[in-house]
Amino acid sequence: MEEDILYHLDLGTRTHNLPAMFGDIKFVCVGGSPNRMKAFAQFMHKELGLEGSGEDLADICAGTDRYAMYRTGPVLSISHGMGIPSISIMLHELIKLLHHAKCRDVTIIRIGTSGGLGIEAGSVVITDTAVDASFQPRFEQVVLGDVVVRSTDLDRDLAEELLACSKEVPDFPTLIGHTMCTYDFYEGQGRLDGALCSFSSEKKLEYLKRAHEAGVRNIEMESTAFAAMCGLCGLKAAVVCVALLDRLEGDQIRAPREVLREYQQRPQRLIAAFIRRPLPCDYMSVPLSFT
Amino acid sequence: MEEDILYHLDLGTRTHNLPAMFGDIKFVCVGGSPNRMKAFAQFMHKELGLEGSGEDLADICAGTDRYAMYRTGPVLSISHGMGIPSISIMLHELIKLLHHAKCRDVTIIRIGTSGGLGIEAGSVVITDTAVDASFQPRFEQVVLGDVVVRSTDLDRDLAEELLACSKEVPDFPTLIGHTMCTYDFYEGQGRLDGALCSFSSEKKLEYLKRAHEAGVRNIEMESTAFAAMCGLCGLKAAVVCVALLDRLEGDQIRAPREVLREYQQRPQRLIAAFIRRPLPCDYMSVPLSFT
Repeated sequence: MEEDILYHLDLGTRTHNLPAMFGDIKFVCVGGSPNRMKAFAQFMHKELGLEGSGEDLADICAGTDRYAMYRTGPVLSISHGMGIPSISIMLHELIKLLHHAKCRDVTIIRIGTSGGLGIEAGSVVITDTAVDASFQPRFEQVVLGDVVVRSTDLDRDLAEELLACSKEVPDFPTLIGHTMCTYDFYEGQGRLDGALCSFSSEKKLEYLKRAHEAGVRNIEMESTAFAAMCGLCGLKAAVVCVALLDRLEGDQIRAPREVLREYQQRPQRLIAAFIRRPLPCDYMSVPLSFT
Repeated sequence: MEEDILYHLDLGTRTHNLPAMFGDIKFVCVGGSPNRMKAFAQFMHKELGLEGSGEDLADICAGTDRYAMYRTGPVLSISHGMGIPSISIMLHELIKLLHHAKCRDVTIIRIGTSGGLGIEAGSVVITDTAVDASFQPRFEQVVLGDVVVRSTDLDRDLAEELLACSKEVPDFPTLIGHTMCTYDFYEGQGRLDGALCSFSSEKKLEYLKRAHEAGVRNIEMESTAFAAMCGLCGLKAAVVCVALLDRLEGDQIRAPREVLREYQQRPQRLIAAFIRRPLPCDYMSVPLSFT
Protein backbone atom coordinates (compact mmCIF):
# COMPACT_ATOMS: atom_id res chain seq x y z
CA MET A 1 0.00 0.00 0.00
CA GLU A 2 1.36 3.40 -1.00
CA GLU A 3 -0.41 5.13 1.87
CA ASP A 4 -2.15 3.62 4.89
CA ILE A 5 -4.85 5.77 6.49
CA LEU A 6 -5.61 4.68 10.07
CA TYR A 7 -9.04 6.27 9.78
CA HIS A 8 -10.41 5.83 13.32
CA LEU A 9 -7.15 7.04 14.89
CA ASP A 10 -6.85 10.01 12.50
CA LEU A 11 -3.26 9.01 11.71
CA GLY A 12 -1.61 7.87 8.48
CA THR A 13 1.70 6.87 6.93
CA ARG A 14 1.79 9.89 4.63
CA THR A 15 0.55 12.51 7.12
CA HIS A 16 2.56 11.36 10.14
CA ASN A 17 6.12 10.15 10.78
CA LEU A 18 5.03 7.05 12.69
CA PRO A 19 8.57 5.67 13.40
CA ALA A 20 9.58 9.00 14.94
CA MET A 21 6.34 9.30 16.92
CA PHE A 22 6.09 5.70 18.17
CA GLY A 23 9.28 3.73 17.29
CA ASP A 24 10.45 3.49 20.94
CA ILE A 25 7.11 2.44 22.47
CA LYS A 26 7.50 -0.67 24.67
CA PHE A 27 4.19 -0.78 26.55
CA VAL A 28 0.72 -0.23 25.19
CA CYS A 29 -2.10 0.01 27.73
CA VAL A 30 -5.69 -0.01 26.54
CA GLY A 31 -8.99 0.54 28.36
CA GLY A 32 -12.57 1.46 27.60
CA SER A 33 -12.87 5.03 28.86
CA PRO A 34 -10.97 7.95 27.28
CA ASN A 35 -10.83 9.89 30.56
CA ARG A 36 -9.44 6.89 32.41
CA MET A 37 -6.74 6.32 29.77
CA LYS A 38 -5.75 9.99 29.98
CA ALA A 39 -5.55 9.70 33.78
CA PHE A 40 -3.43 6.56 33.38
CA ALA A 41 -0.96 8.35 31.07
CA GLN A 42 -0.68 11.22 33.56
CA PHE A 43 -0.19 8.75 36.42
CA MET A 44 2.54 6.87 34.49
CA HIS A 45 4.23 10.18 33.69
CA LYS A 46 4.64 10.80 37.42
CA GLU A 47 5.51 7.18 38.20
CA LEU A 48 8.30 7.25 35.61
CA GLY A 49 9.65 10.48 37.11
CA LEU A 50 9.46 12.29 33.79
CA GLU A 51 9.75 16.07 33.60
CA GLY A 52 6.69 18.25 34.15
CA SER A 53 3.41 17.41 35.80
CA GLY A 54 2.04 15.45 32.84
CA GLU A 55 -1.19 17.44 33.11
CA ASP A 56 -0.76 18.77 29.58
CA LEU A 57 -0.28 15.48 27.72
CA ALA A 58 -1.95 15.94 24.31
CA ASP A 59 -4.48 13.56 22.76
CA ILE A 60 -2.62 12.16 19.74
CA CYS A 61 -5.99 11.28 18.14
CA ALA A 62 -7.48 14.74 18.81
CA GLY A 63 -8.73 14.90 15.20
CA THR A 64 -11.33 12.21 15.94
CA ASP A 65 -13.55 11.39 18.91
CA ARG A 66 -13.63 7.64 18.21
CA TYR A 67 -10.60 6.94 20.41
CA ALA A 68 -8.17 8.92 22.60
CA MET A 69 -4.40 8.26 22.71
CA TYR A 70 -1.66 9.58 24.99
CA ARG A 71 2.02 8.76 25.29
CA THR A 72 4.50 9.24 28.09
CA GLY A 73 8.00 7.79 27.98
CA PRO A 74 7.83 4.28 26.51
CA VAL A 75 4.13 3.95 27.36
CA LEU A 76 1.19 4.43 24.99
CA SER A 77 -2.27 4.71 26.57
CA ILE A 78 -5.33 4.29 24.30
CA SER A 79 -9.09 4.06 24.84
CA HIS A 80 -11.07 1.40 22.99
CA GLY A 81 -14.72 2.07 23.86
CA MET A 82 -17.03 -0.75 24.91
CA GLY A 83 -17.39 -4.18 23.34
CA ILE A 84 -15.61 -6.44 20.87
CA PRO A 85 -16.36 -4.51 17.66
CA SER A 86 -15.07 -1.27 19.17
CA ILE A 87 -11.82 -2.77 20.51
CA SER A 88 -11.32 -4.71 17.23
CA ILE A 89 -11.28 -1.56 15.11
CA MET A 90 -8.78 0.06 17.47
CA LEU A 91 -6.54 -3.04 17.59
CA HIS A 92 -6.43 -3.40 13.78
CA GLU A 93 -5.25 0.19 13.46
CA LEU A 94 -2.96 0.07 16.51
CA ILE A 95 -1.22 -3.10 15.28
CA LYS A 96 -0.72 -1.51 11.85
CA LEU A 97 0.64 1.60 13.62
CA LEU A 98 3.16 -0.48 15.62
CA HIS A 99 4.18 -2.23 12.39
CA HIS A 100 4.62 1.01 10.43
CA ALA A 101 6.54 2.53 13.38
CA LYS A 102 8.88 -0.51 13.44
CA CYS A 103 8.26 -1.11 17.15
CA ARG A 104 9.94 -4.13 18.76
CA ASP A 105 9.21 -6.19 21.90
CA VAL A 106 5.96 -4.48 22.73
CA THR A 107 3.85 -5.67 25.66
CA ILE A 108 0.15 -4.82 25.49
CA ILE A 109 -2.12 -4.80 28.53
CA ARG A 110 -5.84 -4.18 28.77
CA ILE A 111 -6.68 -2.44 32.06
CA GLY A 112 -10.42 -2.44 32.52
CA THR A 113 -13.47 -2.76 34.70
CA SER A 114 -15.59 -5.88 35.08
CA GLY A 115 -18.20 -7.65 37.13
CA GLY A 116 -16.70 -10.08 39.65
CA LEU A 117 -17.91 -13.63 40.23
CA GLY A 118 -17.63 -14.87 43.79
CA ILE A 119 -14.93 -12.33 44.59
CA GLU A 120 -14.96 -9.18 46.70
CA ALA A 121 -15.75 -5.88 44.95
CA GLY A 122 -12.48 -4.05 44.28
CA SER A 123 -10.52 -7.25 43.62
CA VAL A 124 -8.19 -7.22 40.61
CA VAL A 125 -8.31 -10.21 38.25
CA ILE A 126 -5.36 -11.10 36.01
CA THR A 127 -6.78 -13.23 33.19
CA ASP A 128 -5.17 -16.59 32.50
CA THR A 129 -7.71 -17.54 29.83
CA ALA A 130 -10.43 -15.50 28.15
CA VAL A 131 -13.58 -17.55 27.58
CA ASP A 132 -16.84 -16.94 25.72
CA ALA A 133 -20.41 -17.08 27.12
CA SER A 134 -20.26 -20.91 26.94
CA PHE A 135 -17.04 -20.85 29.03
CA GLN A 136 -14.94 -21.97 26.04
CA PRO A 137 -11.48 -20.48 25.32
CA ARG A 138 -12.34 -19.34 21.82
CA PHE A 139 -13.23 -16.28 19.79
CA GLU A 140 -15.59 -16.67 16.86
CA GLN A 141 -14.79 -14.16 14.14
CA VAL A 142 -17.09 -13.84 11.15
CA VAL A 143 -14.99 -13.47 7.98
CA LEU A 144 -16.85 -12.97 4.68
CA GLY A 145 -19.96 -14.47 6.29
CA ASP A 146 -18.20 -17.60 7.63
CA VAL A 147 -17.30 -18.27 11.26
CA VAL A 148 -13.58 -18.68 11.97
CA VAL A 149 -12.67 -19.94 15.47
CA ARG A 150 -9.58 -18.43 17.08
CA SER A 151 -7.62 -19.24 20.22
CA THR A 152 -7.78 -16.84 23.16
CA ASP A 153 -4.52 -17.80 24.87
CA LEU A 154 -2.74 -15.09 26.80
CA ASP A 155 0.89 -15.03 27.93
CA ARG A 156 1.11 -17.23 31.06
CA ASP A 157 4.54 -15.91 32.11
CA LEU A 158 3.32 -12.33 31.86
CA ALA A 159 0.28 -13.16 34.00
CA GLU A 160 2.55 -14.73 36.65
CA GLU A 161 4.90 -11.76 36.52
CA LEU A 162 1.95 -9.40 37.04
CA LEU A 163 0.78 -11.49 40.00
CA ALA A 164 4.28 -11.22 41.50
CA CYS A 165 4.14 -7.43 41.02
CA SER A 166 0.84 -7.32 42.89
CA LYS A 167 2.77 -8.06 46.11
CA GLU A 168 4.18 -4.53 45.80
CA VAL A 169 0.66 -3.04 45.96
CA PRO A 170 -0.71 -5.08 48.85
CA ASP A 171 -3.73 -2.98 49.83
CA PHE A 172 -6.16 -4.81 47.52
CA PRO A 173 -6.66 -8.49 46.60
CA THR A 174 -5.28 -9.67 43.25
CA LEU A 175 -5.88 -13.11 41.77
CA ILE A 176 -5.49 -15.09 38.54
CA GLY A 177 -8.64 -16.54 36.94
CA HIS A 178 -10.66 -17.00 33.78
CA THR A 179 -12.41 -13.96 32.35
CA MET A 180 -15.72 -14.38 30.53
CA CYS A 181 -16.31 -12.04 27.59
CA THR A 182 -19.86 -11.28 26.39
CA TYR A 183 -21.48 -9.26 23.59
CA ASP A 184 -24.01 -7.67 25.93
CA PHE A 185 -23.94 -6.14 29.40
CA TYR A 186 -27.55 -6.94 30.38
CA GLU A 187 -29.10 -10.15 28.96
CA GLY A 188 -25.70 -11.49 27.88
CA GLN A 189 -24.34 -11.27 31.43
CA GLY A 190 -27.53 -12.53 33.06
CA ARG A 191 -28.67 -9.19 34.45
CA LEU A 192 -32.30 -8.89 35.50
CA ASP A 193 -32.35 -5.08 35.31
CA GLY A 194 -32.12 -4.39 31.57
CA ALA A 195 -34.92 -3.05 29.35
CA LEU A 196 -35.45 -6.67 28.24
CA CYS A 197 -35.27 -9.73 30.48
CA SER A 198 -36.75 -13.14 29.65
CA PHE A 199 -35.34 -15.26 32.49
CA SER A 200 -35.83 -15.72 36.23
CA SER A 201 -33.53 -14.88 39.10
CA GLU A 202 -33.02 -18.63 39.60
CA LYS A 203 -31.92 -19.21 35.99
CA LYS A 204 -29.56 -16.27 36.25
CA LEU A 205 -27.89 -17.56 39.42
CA GLU A 206 -27.69 -21.06 38.00
CA TYR A 207 -25.81 -19.67 34.95
CA LEU A 208 -23.46 -17.50 36.98
CA LYS A 209 -22.67 -20.39 39.33
CA ARG A 210 -21.90 -22.66 36.37
CA ALA A 211 -19.53 -19.95 35.12
CA HIS A 212 -17.87 -19.79 38.53
CA GLU A 213 -17.46 -23.57 38.62
CA ALA A 214 -15.82 -23.39 35.18
CA GLY A 215 -13.19 -21.07 36.69
CA VAL A 216 -14.63 -17.69 35.65
CA ARG A 217 -13.79 -14.98 38.18
CA ASN A 218 -14.92 -11.91 36.26
CA ILE A 219 -17.01 -10.85 33.24
CA GLU A 220 -16.29 -8.10 30.74
CA MET A 221 -16.81 -7.38 27.03
CA GLU A 222 -13.47 -7.31 25.18
CA SER A 223 -11.02 -9.99 26.36
CA THR A 224 -11.61 -12.81 23.82
CA ALA A 225 -11.15 -10.54 20.79
CA PHE A 226 -8.17 -8.82 22.45
CA ALA A 227 -6.47 -12.17 23.24
CA ALA A 228 -7.19 -13.59 19.77
CA MET A 229 -5.92 -10.58 17.81
CA CYS A 230 -2.82 -10.00 19.95
CA GLY A 231 -2.03 -13.71 19.82
CA LEU A 232 -2.28 -13.89 16.02
CA CYS A 233 -0.10 -10.77 15.66
CA GLY A 234 2.59 -11.99 18.08
CA LEU A 235 2.04 -9.36 20.76
CA LYS A 236 2.70 -10.36 24.40
CA ALA A 237 -0.66 -9.60 25.99
CA ALA A 238 -2.38 -9.47 29.38
CA VAL A 239 -5.81 -8.51 30.70
CA VAL A 240 -6.05 -6.94 34.16
CA CYS A 241 -9.51 -5.83 35.31
CA VAL A 242 -10.94 -4.66 38.60
CA ALA A 243 -14.33 -6.04 39.70
CA LEU A 244 -16.81 -3.23 40.45
CA LEU A 245 -19.23 -5.60 42.21
CA ASP A 246 -19.82 -9.30 42.89
CA ARG A 247 -22.42 -10.47 40.38
CA LEU A 248 -23.49 -13.30 42.71
CA GLU A 249 -24.80 -10.53 44.98
CA GLY A 250 -26.49 -8.18 42.49
CA ASP A 251 -26.71 -6.55 39.08
CA GLN A 252 -26.56 -2.79 39.63
CA ILE A 253 -23.30 -0.94 40.22
CA ARG A 254 -24.25 0.85 43.45
CA ALA A 255 -20.92 1.85 44.98
CA PRO A 256 -20.39 5.62 45.28
CA ARG A 257 -18.49 7.28 42.41
CA GLU A 258 -15.42 7.97 44.61
CA VAL A 259 -15.21 4.29 45.60
CA LEU A 260 -15.50 3.25 41.95
CA ARG A 261 -12.82 5.77 41.03
CA GLU A 262 -10.41 4.29 43.55
CA TYR A 263 -11.24 0.76 42.30
CA GLN A 264 -10.40 1.83 38.75
CA GLN A 265 -6.97 3.06 39.88
CA ARG A 266 -6.04 -0.40 41.18
CA PRO A 267 -5.15 -2.03 37.81
CA GLN A 268 -3.25 1.18 36.96
CA ARG A 269 -1.16 0.95 40.14
CA LEU A 270 -0.39 -2.71 39.46
CA ILE A 271 0.67 -1.97 35.87
CA ALA A 272 2.81 0.96 37.03
CA ALA A 273 4.65 -1.39 39.41
CA PHE A 274 5.14 -3.80 36.48
CA ILE A 275 6.35 -1.20 33.99
CA ARG A 276 8.80 0.30 36.44
CA ARG A 277 10.35 -3.09 37.13
CA PRO A 278 11.54 -4.91 34.06
CA LEU A 279 12.91 -2.10 31.88
CA PRO A 280 16.42 -2.71 30.54
CA CYS A 281 17.53 0.73 31.71
CA ASP A 282 16.26 2.72 34.66
CA TYR A 283 13.83 5.30 33.30
CA MET A 284 13.70 6.91 36.73
CA SER A 285 17.27 8.11 36.32
CA VAL A 286 17.23 9.06 32.63
CA PRO A 287 13.95 10.91 32.28
CA LEU A 288 15.13 13.21 29.50
CA SER A 289 15.35 10.50 26.87
CA PHE A 290 11.57 10.30 26.85
CA THR A 291 10.48 13.89 27.30
CA MET B 1 -36.92 -1.85 41.83
CA GLU B 2 -36.70 0.84 44.49
CA GLU B 3 -34.00 2.72 42.61
CA ASP B 4 -32.78 2.25 39.05
CA ILE B 5 -29.25 3.42 38.36
CA LEU B 6 -28.62 3.96 34.63
CA TYR B 7 -24.92 3.46 35.22
CA HIS B 8 -23.46 4.20 31.76
CA LEU B 9 -25.60 7.34 31.36
CA ASP B 10 -24.81 8.57 34.89
CA LEU B 11 -28.54 9.06 35.56
CA GLY B 12 -30.90 7.41 38.03
CA THR B 13 -34.46 7.41 39.30
CA ARG B 14 -33.45 8.63 42.75
CA THR B 15 -30.89 11.23 41.70
CA HIS B 16 -32.81 12.72 38.75
CA ASN B 17 -36.41 13.72 38.07
CA LEU B 18 -36.64 11.81 34.80
CA PRO B 19 -40.29 12.70 33.95
CA ALA B 20 -39.48 16.42 34.33
CA MET B 21 -36.24 16.10 32.34
CA PHE B 22 -37.49 13.88 29.52
CA GLY B 23 -41.30 13.42 29.71
CA ASP B 24 -42.02 15.50 26.58
CA ILE B 25 -39.35 13.93 24.34
CA LYS B 26 -40.84 12.81 20.99
CA PHE B 27 -37.73 12.13 18.88
CA VAL B 28 -34.58 10.32 19.90
CA CYS B 29 -31.68 10.44 17.47
CA VAL B 30 -28.64 8.23 18.05
CA GLY B 31 -25.27 8.02 16.32
CA GLY B 32 -21.77 6.73 16.97
CA SER B 33 -19.74 9.88 17.54
CA PRO B 34 -20.30 12.19 20.55
CA ASN B 35 -19.13 15.28 18.64
CA ARG B 36 -21.49 14.53 15.76
CA MET B 37 -24.45 14.06 18.11
CA LYS B 38 -23.64 17.38 19.80
CA ALA B 39 -23.49 19.06 16.39
CA PHE B 40 -26.83 17.46 15.50
CA ALA B 41 -28.49 18.84 18.66
CA GLN B 42 -27.13 22.31 17.90
CA PHE B 43 -28.32 22.03 14.30
CA MET B 44 -31.82 20.92 15.41
CA HIS B 45 -31.92 23.80 17.90
CA LYS B 46 -31.54 26.22 14.99
CA GLU B 47 -33.85 24.26 12.70
CA LEU B 48 -36.61 24.34 15.33
CA GLY B 49 -36.15 28.10 15.73
CA LEU B 50 -35.58 27.80 19.46
CA GLU B 51 -34.15 30.67 21.45
CA GLY B 52 -30.40 31.20 21.66
CA SER B 53 -27.65 29.89 19.41
CA GLY B 54 -27.70 26.37 20.88
CA GLU B 55 -23.91 26.54 21.19
CA ASP B 56 -24.11 26.06 24.95
CA LEU B 57 -26.26 22.89 25.07
CA ALA B 58 -25.01 20.90 28.04
CA ASP B 59 -24.04 17.20 27.95
CA ILE B 60 -26.68 15.54 30.15
CA CYS B 61 -24.30 12.60 30.68
CA ALA B 62 -21.34 14.84 31.59
CA GLY B 63 -20.60 12.69 34.66
CA THR B 64 -19.45 9.82 32.41
CA ASP B 65 -17.47 9.62 29.17
CA ARG B 66 -19.18 6.43 27.97
CA TYR B 67 -21.91 8.32 26.09
CA ALA B 68 -22.89 11.96 25.42
CA MET B 69 -26.50 13.21 25.47
CA TYR B 70 -28.07 16.53 24.46
CA ARG B 71 -31.63 17.73 24.25
CA THR B 72 -33.27 20.55 22.36
CA GLY B 73 -37.05 20.99 22.19
CA PRO B 74 -38.66 17.56 21.76
CA VAL B 75 -35.42 16.04 20.42
CA LEU B 76 -32.90 13.95 22.36
CA SER B 77 -29.52 13.34 20.69
CA ILE B 78 -27.29 10.57 22.08
CA SER B 79 -24.02 8.95 21.05
CA HIS B 80 -23.69 5.17 21.15
CA GLY B 81 -20.05 4.43 20.27
CA MET B 82 -19.16 1.76 17.73
CA GLY B 83 -20.61 -1.73 17.42
CA ILE B 84 -23.50 -3.80 18.70
CA PRO B 85 -22.37 -4.22 22.32
CA SER B 86 -21.85 -0.48 22.73
CA ILE B 87 -25.22 0.50 21.22
CA SER B 88 -26.96 -2.28 23.22
CA ILE B 89 -25.82 -0.92 26.58
CA MET B 90 -27.01 2.56 25.60
CA LEU B 91 -30.37 1.29 24.29
CA HIS B 92 -31.10 -0.73 27.45
CA GLU B 93 -30.54 2.35 29.59
CA LEU B 94 -32.27 4.75 27.16
CA ILE B 95 -35.38 2.56 26.94
CA LYS B 96 -35.52 2.36 30.75
CA LEU B 97 -35.10 6.16 30.84
CA LEU B 98 -38.03 6.68 28.42
CA HIS B 99 -40.10 4.28 30.53
CA HIS B 100 -39.28 5.98 33.84
CA ALA B 101 -39.92 9.39 32.23
CA LYS B 102 -43.35 8.18 31.02
CA CYS B 103 -42.62 9.24 27.42
CA ARG B 104 -45.28 8.48 24.79
CA ASP B 105 -45.19 8.11 20.97
CA VAL B 106 -41.43 8.30 20.68
CA THR B 107 -39.75 7.86 17.30
CA ILE B 108 -36.11 6.74 17.39
CA ILE B 109 -33.72 7.18 14.48
CA ARG B 110 -30.12 6.07 14.11
CA ILE B 111 -28.19 8.57 11.96
CA GLY B 112 -24.84 7.10 11.12
CA THR B 113 -22.03 6.50 8.68
CA SER B 114 -21.53 3.38 6.61
CA GLY B 115 -19.77 1.84 3.65
CA GLY B 116 -21.87 1.89 0.50
CA LEU B 117 -22.35 -1.05 -1.85
CA GLY B 118 -22.73 -0.15 -5.51
CA ILE B 119 -23.87 3.37 -4.66
CA GLU B 120 -22.16 6.72 -5.00
CA ALA B 121 -20.18 8.02 -2.01
CA GLY B 122 -22.31 10.56 -0.16
CA SER B 123 -25.58 8.71 -0.85
CA VAL B 124 -27.98 8.37 2.07
CA VAL B 125 -29.52 4.94 2.68
CA ILE B 126 -32.80 4.53 4.58
CA THR B 127 -32.86 0.95 5.84
CA ASP B 128 -35.90 -1.19 5.05
CA THR B 129 -34.41 -4.34 6.60
CA ALA B 130 -31.28 -4.82 8.70
CA VAL B 131 -29.50 -8.07 7.83
CA ASP B 132 -26.56 -9.97 9.34
CA ALA B 133 -23.32 -11.03 7.63
CA SER B 134 -25.21 -13.92 5.96
CA PHE B 135 -27.77 -11.43 4.56
CA GLN B 136 -30.50 -12.75 6.90
CA PRO B 137 -32.96 -10.41 8.67
CA ARG B 138 -32.11 -11.60 12.16
CA PHE B 139 -30.20 -10.67 15.27
CA GLU B 140 -28.65 -13.43 17.33
CA GLN B 141 -28.56 -12.45 20.99
CA VAL B 142 -26.73 -14.69 23.46
CA VAL B 143 -28.82 -14.97 26.66
CA LEU B 144 -27.35 -17.00 29.55
CA GLY B 145 -25.08 -18.78 27.04
CA ASP B 146 -27.88 -19.70 24.60
CA VAL B 147 -28.53 -18.07 21.23
CA VAL B 148 -31.92 -16.35 20.88
CA VAL B 149 -32.87 -15.23 17.35
CA ARG B 150 -34.73 -11.93 17.04
CA SER B 151 -36.44 -10.16 14.17
CA THR B 152 -34.84 -7.02 12.73
CA ASP B 153 -37.96 -5.46 11.20
CA LEU B 154 -38.05 -1.69 11.02
CA ASP B 155 -41.10 0.54 10.53
CA ARG B 156 -41.91 0.48 6.76
CA ASP B 157 -44.20 3.52 6.91
CA LEU B 158 -41.55 5.55 8.69
CA ALA B 159 -38.96 4.57 6.05
CA GLU B 160 -41.35 5.68 3.26
CA GLU B 161 -42.11 8.91 5.09
CA LEU B 162 -38.38 9.61 5.39
CA LEU B 163 -37.90 8.91 1.68
CA ALA B 164 -40.69 11.41 0.93
CA CYS B 165 -38.93 13.99 3.13
CA SER B 166 -35.72 13.48 1.15
CA LYS B 167 -37.36 15.31 -1.76
CA GLU B 168 -37.05 18.46 0.37
CA VAL B 169 -33.26 18.08 0.51
CA PRO B 170 -32.62 17.30 -3.15
CA ASP B 171 -28.87 17.97 -3.38
CA PHE B 172 -27.83 14.40 -2.55
CA PRO B 173 -29.16 10.95 -3.56
CA THR B 174 -31.34 9.09 -1.02
CA LEU B 175 -32.55 5.52 -1.44
CA ILE B 176 -34.17 2.68 0.46
CA GLY B 177 -32.28 -0.61 0.78
CA HIS B 178 -31.07 -3.39 3.05
CA THR B 179 -28.33 -2.57 5.54
CA MET B 180 -25.83 -5.24 6.52
CA CYS B 181 -24.60 -5.15 10.10
CA THR B 182 -21.27 -6.75 11.07
CA TYR B 183 -19.26 -7.28 14.27
CA ASP B 184 -16.03 -6.13 12.66
CA PHE B 185 -14.97 -3.30 10.39
CA TYR B 186 -12.03 -5.07 8.71
CA GLU B 187 -12.28 -8.85 8.23
CA GLY B 188 -16.03 -8.85 8.94
CA GLN B 189 -16.70 -6.38 6.13
CA GLY B 190 -14.24 -7.99 3.72
CA ARG B 191 -11.56 -5.33 3.96
CA LEU B 192 -8.08 -6.25 2.74
CA ASP B 193 -6.32 -3.49 4.71
CA GLY B 194 -6.67 -4.66 8.34
CA ALA B 195 -3.86 -5.98 10.55
CA LEU B 196 -5.17 -9.46 9.72
CA CYS B 197 -6.44 -10.63 6.35
CA SER B 198 -6.79 -14.24 5.25
CA PHE B 199 -8.64 -13.85 1.94
CA SER B 200 -7.96 -12.64 -1.59
CA SER B 201 -9.26 -9.59 -3.39
CA GLU B 202 -11.35 -11.96 -5.55
CA LYS B 203 -13.03 -13.61 -2.55
CA LYS B 204 -13.76 -10.19 -1.08
CA LEU B 205 -15.41 -8.92 -4.25
CA GLU B 206 -17.35 -12.13 -4.67
CA TYR B 207 -18.75 -11.69 -1.10
CA LEU B 208 -19.61 -8.02 -1.54
CA LYS B 209 -21.31 -8.73 -4.89
CA ARG B 210 -23.39 -11.48 -3.29
CA ALA B 211 -24.42 -8.98 -0.61
CA HIS B 212 -25.39 -6.47 -3.30
CA GLU B 213 -27.45 -9.10 -5.13
CA ALA B 214 -29.24 -9.84 -1.84
CA GLY B 215 -30.33 -6.20 -1.73
CA VAL B 216 -27.66 -4.80 0.61
CA ARG B 217 -26.85 -1.17 -0.20
CA ASN B 218 -24.71 -0.29 2.79
CA ILE B 219 -22.75 -1.87 5.66
CA GLU B 220 -22.44 -0.68 9.24
CA MET B 221 -22.13 -2.12 12.74
CA GLU B 222 -25.27 -1.44 14.81
CA SER B 223 -28.49 -1.79 12.80
CA THR B 224 -29.56 -5.39 13.60
CA ALA B 225 -29.30 -4.92 17.37
CA PHE B 226 -30.96 -1.49 17.11
CA ALA B 227 -33.87 -2.86 15.05
CA ALA B 228 -34.32 -5.91 17.31
CA MET B 229 -34.31 -4.01 20.60
CA CYS B 230 -36.52 -1.15 19.40
CA GLY B 231 -38.93 -3.65 17.84
CA LEU B 232 -39.24 -5.70 21.03
CA CYS B 233 -39.80 -2.55 23.10
CA GLY B 234 -42.43 -1.09 20.74
CA LEU B 235 -40.41 1.91 19.58
CA LYS B 236 -41.02 3.19 16.03
CA ALA B 237 -37.50 3.01 14.60
CA ALA B 238 -35.51 3.93 11.49
CA VAL B 239 -31.89 3.75 10.37
CA VAL B 240 -30.54 6.47 8.08
CA CYS B 241 -26.84 6.28 7.18
CA VAL B 242 -24.64 8.08 4.70
CA ALA B 243 -22.15 6.04 2.66
CA LEU B 244 -18.59 7.39 3.05
CA LEU B 245 -17.31 5.34 0.09
CA ASP B 246 -18.39 2.62 -2.34
CA ARG B 247 -16.91 -0.64 -1.04
CA LEU B 248 -16.97 -2.14 -4.54
CA GLU B 249 -14.29 0.43 -5.36
CA GLY B 250 -12.05 0.26 -2.30
CA ASP B 251 -11.51 -0.24 1.43
CA GLN B 252 -9.88 2.92 2.75
CA ILE B 253 -11.84 6.07 3.53
CA ARG B 254 -9.78 8.54 1.47
CA ALA B 255 -12.08 11.52 1.01
CA PRO B 256 -10.81 14.76 2.59
CA ARG B 257 -12.09 15.49 6.12
CA GLU B 258 -14.21 18.45 4.91
CA VAL B 259 -15.96 16.25 2.33
CA LEU B 260 -16.61 13.59 4.98
CA ARG B 261 -17.94 16.27 7.33
CA GLU B 262 -20.45 17.43 4.71
CA TYR B 263 -21.46 13.80 4.03
CA GLN B 264 -22.16 13.32 7.75
CA GLN B 265 -24.49 16.31 7.75
CA ARG B 266 -26.73 14.74 5.10
CA PRO B 267 -28.68 12.33 7.35
CA GLN B 268 -28.99 15.20 9.86
CA ARG B 269 -30.53 17.48 7.23
CA LEU B 270 -32.97 14.75 6.18
CA ILE B 271 -34.01 14.08 9.79
CA ALA B 272 -34.44 17.81 10.43
CA ALA B 273 -36.84 18.00 7.48
CA PHE B 274 -38.72 15.02 8.92
CA ILE B 275 -38.92 16.33 12.49
CA ARG B 276 -40.10 19.75 11.36
CA ARG B 277 -42.93 18.21 9.34
CA PRO B 278 -45.16 15.89 11.31
CA LEU B 279 -45.39 17.64 14.67
CA PRO B 280 -48.93 18.17 15.93
CA CYS B 281 -48.18 21.81 16.71
CA ASP B 282 -45.74 24.07 14.93
CA TYR B 283 -42.62 24.28 17.07
CA MET B 284 -41.32 27.04 14.83
CA SER B 285 -43.96 29.38 16.20
CA VAL B 286 -44.02 28.30 19.85
CA PRO B 287 -40.36 28.07 20.66
CA LEU B 288 -40.70 28.98 24.34
CA SER B 289 -42.43 25.77 25.33
CA PHE B 290 -39.17 23.90 24.78
CA THR B 291 -36.53 26.35 25.93
